[in-house]
This record gives sequence, C-alpha cells and structure tokens, in this order.
Amino acid sequence: MEIKTSSKFVAELIGTFGLVLFGCGAAAIAGGTTLAGTAGLGLLGISVAFGLSVVVFAYAIGGISGCHINPAVTIGVLVAGRISAKDAAVYIIAQLVGALLGAFVLQTLLSGQLAGFTAGEWAYGSNGWGEGYQNEYGTGAAFLTEAVLTFIFLFVILATTSKVGNATMAGLAIGFTLLLIHLVAIPITGTSVNPARSFGPALLAGGQALSQLWLFIVAPVVGAVLAAVVWKAIEPKETV
Amino acid sequence: MEIKTSSKFVAELIGTFGLVLFGCGAAAIAGGTTLAGTAGLGLLGISVAFGLSVVVFAYAIGGISGCHINPAVTIGVLVAGRISAKDAAVYIIAQLVGALLGAFVLQTLLSGQLAGFTAGEWAYGSNGWGEGYQNEYGTGAAFLTEAVLTFIFLFVILATTSKVGNATMAGLAIGFTLLLIHLVAIPITGTSVNPARSFGPALLAGGQALSQLWLFIVAPVVGAVLAAVVWKAIEPKETV
Amino acid sequence: MEIKTSSKFVAELIGTFGLVLFGCGAAAIAGGTTLAGTAGLGLLGISVAFGLSVVVFAYAIGGISGCHINPAVTIGVLVAGRISAKDAAVYIIAQLVGALLGAFVLQTLLSGQLAGFTAGEWAYGSNGWGEGYQNEYGTGAAFLTEAVLTFIFLFVILATTSKVGNATMAGLAIGFTLLLIHLVAIPITGTSVNPARSFGPALLAGGQALSQLWLFIVAPVVGAVLAAVVWKAIEPKETV
Amino acid sequence: MEIKTSSKFVAELIGTFGLVLFGCGAAAIAGGTTLAGTAGLGLLGISVAFGLSVVVFAYAIGGISGCHINPAVTIGVLVAGRISAKDAAVYIIAQLVGALLGAFVLQTLLSGQLAGFTAGEWAYGSNGWGEGYQNEYGTGAAFLTEAVLTFIFLFVILATTSKVGNATMAGLAIGFTLLLIHLVAIPITGTSVNPARSFGPALLAGGQALSQLWLFIVAPVVGAVLAAVVWKAIEPKETV
Repeated sequence: MEIKTSSKFVAELIGTFGLVLFGCGAAAIAGGTTLAGTAGLGLLGISVAFGLSVVVFAYAIGGISGCHINPAVTIGVLVAGRISAKDAAVYIIAQLVGALLGAFVLQTLLSGQLAGFTAGEWAYGSNGWGEGYQNEYGTGAAFLTEAVLTFIFLFVILATTSKVGNATMAGLAIGFTLLLIHLVAIPITGTSVNPARSFGPALLAGGQALSQLWLFIVAPVVGAVLAAVVWKAIEPKETV
Repeated sequence: MEIKTSSKFVAELIGTFGLVLFGCGAAAIAGGTTLAGTAGLGLLGISVAFGLSVVVFAYAIGGISGCHINPAVTIGVLVAGRISAKDAAVYIIAQLVGALLGAFVLQTLLSGQLAGFTAGEWAYGSNGWGEGYQNEYGTGAAFLTEAVLTFIFLFVILATTSKVGNATMAGLAIGFTLLLIHLVAIPITGTSVNPARSFGPALLAGGQALSQLWLFIVAPVVGAVLAAVVWKAIEPKETV
Repeated sequence: MEIKTSSKFVAELIGTFGLVLFGCGAAAIAGGTTLAGTAGLGLLGISVAFGLSVVVFAYAIGGISGCHINPAVTIGVLVAGRISAKDAAVYIIAQLVGALLGAFVLQTLLSGQLAGFTAGEWAYGSNGWGEGYQNEYGTGAAFLTEAVLTFIFLFVILATTSKVGNATMAGLAIGFTLLLIHLVAIPITGTSVNPARSFGPALLAGGQALSQLWLFIVAPVVGAVLAAVVWKAIEPKETV
Repeated sequence: MEIKTSSKFVAELIGTFGLVLFGCGAAAIAGGTTLAGTAGLGLLGISVAFGLSVVVFAYAIGGISGCHINPAVTIGVLVAGRISAKDAAVYIIAQLVGALLGAFVLQTLLSGQLAGFTAGEWAYGSNGWGEGYQNEYGTGAAFLTEAVLTFIFLFVILATTSKVGNATMAGLAIGFTLLLIHLVAIPITGTSVNPARSFGPALLAGGQALSQLWLFIVAPVVGAVLAAVVWKAIEPKETV
C-alpha cells in the first residue's frame, strides 16, 4: 500500500498531540488532585500516561508513519538509515505542530475551571531542572539523565523493530520503555527524552521552561545518535 | 461462521454490563476506601478498571459483535461504513440495557452494606460538571473534553482495526486508550466518552446526573463522527 | 504431544501455589506497609498481584494443563464439555494442595519477622463478609458479588479460548479479568471467585474464615455453571 | 543469522545496566518522593519498574542473547541444557559489569542533587534483611523468600520458552513474574532473585549490603537449579 506524505503528516501530528494531551494532561489535571478521598495519579499514574500513549499510537499509526511522535526518534532512525532526510523534516514539523496544539488544548481545559487555574498547575507539564524545579537536580545530572535515557529508548526502538525483534510486541515494548523512563526521571527533569514534548508546553509557559528548552533538544539527540551507532555495531547481519 | 443477531445482542449487553459494573463499581466501592491501612484505588485504579474492561471484552466478544459496548463507537463505526444501520440500532439498545443492568447490580451491592450507603458513594459513578462536581470545570471545558477525547478514542479504534492495524493487539490498544482518557478526564467530567455508561448511573441517580446527561450523548457523538471523517481521509487505499 | 496426568497435576499445583503466594502474599506482606516514606501496594497493587498471577501461569502452564488453578474454572469448563470428569477431579485436588502449600509458605514467611507477626496480618489474606470484616457488607451482597463476578470470569474464559477467541491474547484477557474483579470486590469479600484460593488461608487461619468458607465454594460454582450455560447458547457454531 | 559473542556480551551488559538503572533508580529517586502533592511511586511503582525492565529488554535483546540479564537465569538455563558453559561465563561477566555500571550511573545522578544526597537514599536500592532493614525479617525468611521466588521465576522462564509456550507472549509473562515477585518480597529482602542486581549496588554501598551479598547469590541459584530439575521432569516430550 502506498502511504501519502500528507497522511504521515496528519498521523504524526495527531500522535504527538495525543502524547502531550494525555501525558502532560494527566500530570497537570489529575497528578496531585484528591477527589473526595480518592487519591490523585501520583508519579506512577503520570508515567503510565506517557508510556501507554506511545503504546496506543504505535498500534494506531505505526502502519502509516511508524509512529515516531518524537524528533529524537526521527533523528535516531535517520542516523540508522531507515528514513529519508526529506521525510524526517516533514515528521519533525508535524511533531512540533502536534505538541503545540496538545499544549494549547490542555491550557484551554485548565483555564475552564470555574475557580480559575494557577500557574503551578500549568508549569507542572513543563520540563526543567535546578533551583525551584522539583527535587532540584543540577545541570549535569539533568543532561546525563536525558542523554542516557534517550540512548536506552532508541536502543529498544531500533532493536525491537529490527529483523531479530517481534513485530507484534514492538509497540508494547517501546511504550513500556517510555513508562520506565518516567518512573526514574520525573523528579530530575520532569522527563522529556522528546524535544517536541518539551517544546509545546515551554512555548506556552515561557520563562524558565523556555530558557531551559535547549537541554531537552541537545541531550536527547546526543543519546539517540549514540544508540543508532551502537545498534548498527551489534545488529545481526543476514548471512547469505 | 454465521453469528446470530441475538448472540450479538447478548454479547453487547454483557460487555456493557461488565464495563459499568467494573468501572463505576471500582470508583464507588473501592476508589477512596482505605482498609486497615491499605489505600484505596485512587484515580489510577479507577482508570485501570475502565480501560481493562474494554481490553477483556474486546478479546471475549470481539469475534461475536466487535465489542463496541458504547453507542458513540457504534455511531462512529456506522459513519465509517463498517456496520449496517439496523445492526447499529440493535447494538445501541443492548448497550443501554446492559448499562442500566450494571448500574442496578452496583446499586444493589452498595445498598448491601450493613451500615447503609450514602448518596455520595453512588453519585461517584455518575458523570457531570460545574458547581459541586469534582474540580468544578465549566460547561465549555466539559464539552471540549468529551468531544476531543472521544475523537482520539474513535481514531485509535478505526486505525487499529483497519488493514494497516495489528489484529492481535488492537483490543489492548483500544482499551489502553480508554485508560488514558480516564487518566486525564476524571477530575473534569468523571469521564464518559460513552453515552450508555452515563445513561445507566444517571437514570438511577437522577437529579443533576440526569439533567446533564445530554452533554454525554452529544459531545461523544460529535467527536466520534469527526474521527470517522478524518480517518477516512487519511486511510491508506489498496493499490491494484 | 502427549501430556502426562502427573505433569498436569504438578502444573496445577504450582500454579495455584503461586497464585496464593503472590496474591495473598502481596496483601499480607506489602498491602498496607509503608517503608521509609514509600507507600504500600494499596488495593490496586493487590489486584495486580492476583490478576498477573493468572497471566503468567496461563502462559507457563497453559500448554500443559490449560491453567485452571481454580476449582470453579474446572467445574465451568466441565459443564461446557471441554474436560473429562476424571481429569477435573485430579485438577481440583492439585489446586487444593497447591493453595494450602502457598498459604503455609506465606504463614512461614510472615512468622519470620523478628518482631513476630500479628493475627491481623495473616487474616488479611482470608475471604469473608459481615461484622468486623472490611467494609461490612451483608451475606446477600457477598453472595451476589461472588456469583456475578465468577459468571463474568468464566464467560471471558470460555469466550477467549473458543474458536472466535484469540489464542495468543487469551491468557492476558483472562488474567486482566481477575484483576478487574479484585478492583471491585476486595472491600466486599476480599475477593475469591476461587474456592481453592479461599480454602488454603481459611484452613490455616481457622475461625470466621473457616466458618464462612461455604459461600466461597457455592457462589463461585453457581456463577461458573451459569456462565457455561449462557456461553453454550450464544457460541457461534461451525457452518458446514 | 549468526550472532557474534561480542554482540551477546554488549546486549547482556546493556540489559542488566538498564534493569539496575530503572529498577533501583525508581526506588532511590522516585519511590518515596512527593512532588507538589503528587505521590511517589510506592511499592507498586517500584515493582512495575523491575518487571517492565525485563519485558522491554526481552523484546529488544531476546533475539540476540535471549535476555538473561541475571546470573541465576543463566545458571538455570545452563542446568536445563540450553546454553554452553563458555557462553554462560561470558553472560555472567557481562551482567556483573552492566549492573555495576548501572549502579554507578545511578549514584552519579543521585549525587547531582543541589542539596546533596543522603546515604539512606542510596541504600534503598540495596538488598538485605535483619535488624534495621525494612520490616526486619530473619535470615531464614530471607533465604526462603529468595529461593522460592527464584524457583517460580525460572519455572515460568523455562516453561514459557519451551515448545508448549507462546513465543510472542513469553517476554511479557516473564517480566510480569518479576513484577509479582517484587509485589511480595520488597518488605522482606528488597527483592533480588538476581545476584548481579544485588552485586552492583552492594559494591558501591558497601557495609551491610556487601556483607549480606552471599545470600543473594546462594539462594537464587538454589531456587534456579531446583526449577530446572522440576521443569525437566514435567516437560512434555516430542512423541515420534
């Protein structure tokens, strides 16, 4: 089947839109909310939101665009030689637009509370580090976290979608990896490993989220490129 | 294999019965209950209850009725041209009967507490918005939430069950999507995206739940129809 | 491949042993325990323990014994005509022995605490109802809960393992159903839907757990038989 | 396809690195941390971290090394006759190196907190028992826990990857088993069932963690060998 580039664009846009709406939305709307004695989602629930978003879109749009919904994934896949530079550019634009749209819908929902909403609620979906951010980890720890975890993320993506992987289970394994990454990294950086997921909320939140956006572009890309190199080195070759 | 219409009716009825009993039951019976120091389910546990209900019935009755157990799903599938109008009507009646039966059994269980039960416990399974409901979101936020999330729900359903989807994993992906929807929307509307799931509890609870029922019919249907239109536009066509 | 009866016996014994050790063990050892600020499992974690136990043994011993690990399942499968009466008897004996062994190991572990353990910890793994048990539901609510939920459990089991089911995903769907059942029923009866799972702890705990054991035999069997009858009525027939 | 030994070495190293970083990292960084009202992971979240780590690496490196990432697994598989002694030695070295590297990166991240980190945080990733450790279980209970749970772990591994298992779902079932093991055993020993996972943190933490390391080597190996013997006895034989 021939897949049109416009279909891939729409698929990546909707997928990244959903990732930001579900992931950041779970954090900002339900993460710390207690309703009549019923506890909020906590760090586990927020991690589940990000992880399962990748799972569901992997099975929904995997057959159309491969479901990258993350510029670091697109760049890692580009370095591994599995996508053209032209397609990669289209994907990244769709991801940035989708993430911005997701952040915009989330902001609209939050501002629909009768009592108004507080800056704190909104900022919660943003990534960051240092003084005043979550558990106050330093710049080095934040960079190492994002680079190492994106390395593992891309390693799992490239391996599970290779000839030695299992095509049926790849989407589940990849989404669970993002879940695991959030289990560890929320107290450090809020967890990005995805420049688009950081871009959407940062553009609307401004301030520290915007001035720290660079790290959530550079570190994930470094980790992704490294993973592509390592995977190419150990990937089993077809023996003729 | 020929599937009888009566079998489809029973399957949709049991599925919707189970969805309401598990989902609303988890919320009303165990959501905020602490037993001898053991914490209640919280928003995460309630979300898991709704999401996994769809997963298990997808694999149990998917081969019989396709497991819609939701009138918005049936209408979206109708617009996408995958079911006849006559079958759709049968499905929706089965769903409404099943949801009402599920709500009735739940009410019977709750009233079986030796100390009696409180209106608050029961109302928890109902959907709503505005003053006095959960975090008090406005009508606009409630409508947008239900429409946008049903859009994503139907988009995932139509995509994962299409020719580019994975038949083995579709049920898991669809159920996980409903789980994700609950992770975000419980503080806003209690989360419906399913007119039947709102209908059962509203009919028994009456009051605000019944007078606000219209939104949980209109908004999900709007989102579902929109998803069917978008999906038809980007769906890969067989090339001969 | 020929499977020996002794292998089936060992498989059912180990599976039921694991179910009781993981499920009741999670409740009694970690359900309400807070370690240095880290919260205990709560009702969600205990539900996950019971549900995933069925998932893992379904894939481990499903190819040997079919993984019933529950006398109500064996009786439902017998009524549906999928197992011989002689094999059913062997299965049920293995399940009772396994459950008792699981409860014994659990009791041994709990009594290995340097500070000793309290009766409360141990009783937590037991099923029951009425005054002094969990949220104090009445006998009628307890019976209805166990019968209705076992009905749904067997319905899902018979459907997912039928010709219209998906053999790969059946184990996951069945285990998730037990997870859902626990999400709803722990505050009511502690959740059984499995005479063997109630038998093991009751025999060691004695008292109320033992005197109330009858309900956790009768109600699940009633639900299981009813499910077998309903499923036979709607099961799609092969058309020649 | 021919898989190079060096590729297997790298795969086992990265997998064990990830298991320690995700599992111990979740415990030490996010287990008991509350962020602006959002609850930490709790025992359920930590259990999910260990369990899903095995799931994702099973699908990522299963096709390269079989994904043991645990010396007790390698020894059990050796006893079952499915790996050569030479390969087993290579695997175990890779696992120990990977675990140590994971513990080192985790320590580096923790020490990157602006306020510094406390010994308590770090020790949390370590295994142990007795006075001052978690709920203070005795040596006998600790040994029994580690041996019995590793027995079940290897039994599930050998069964799901045998001819009567389901190759697609084996990785999920095996990872879920480790999740279940953590649901029960964290309050007792912190849960090891994996000498490498204990080795990494113990070497860096020193003290009690290091002096108690022997139990987390001996008990898992005893359980693993026993499981291999039992499985060989009941494994269905090909009938010619």
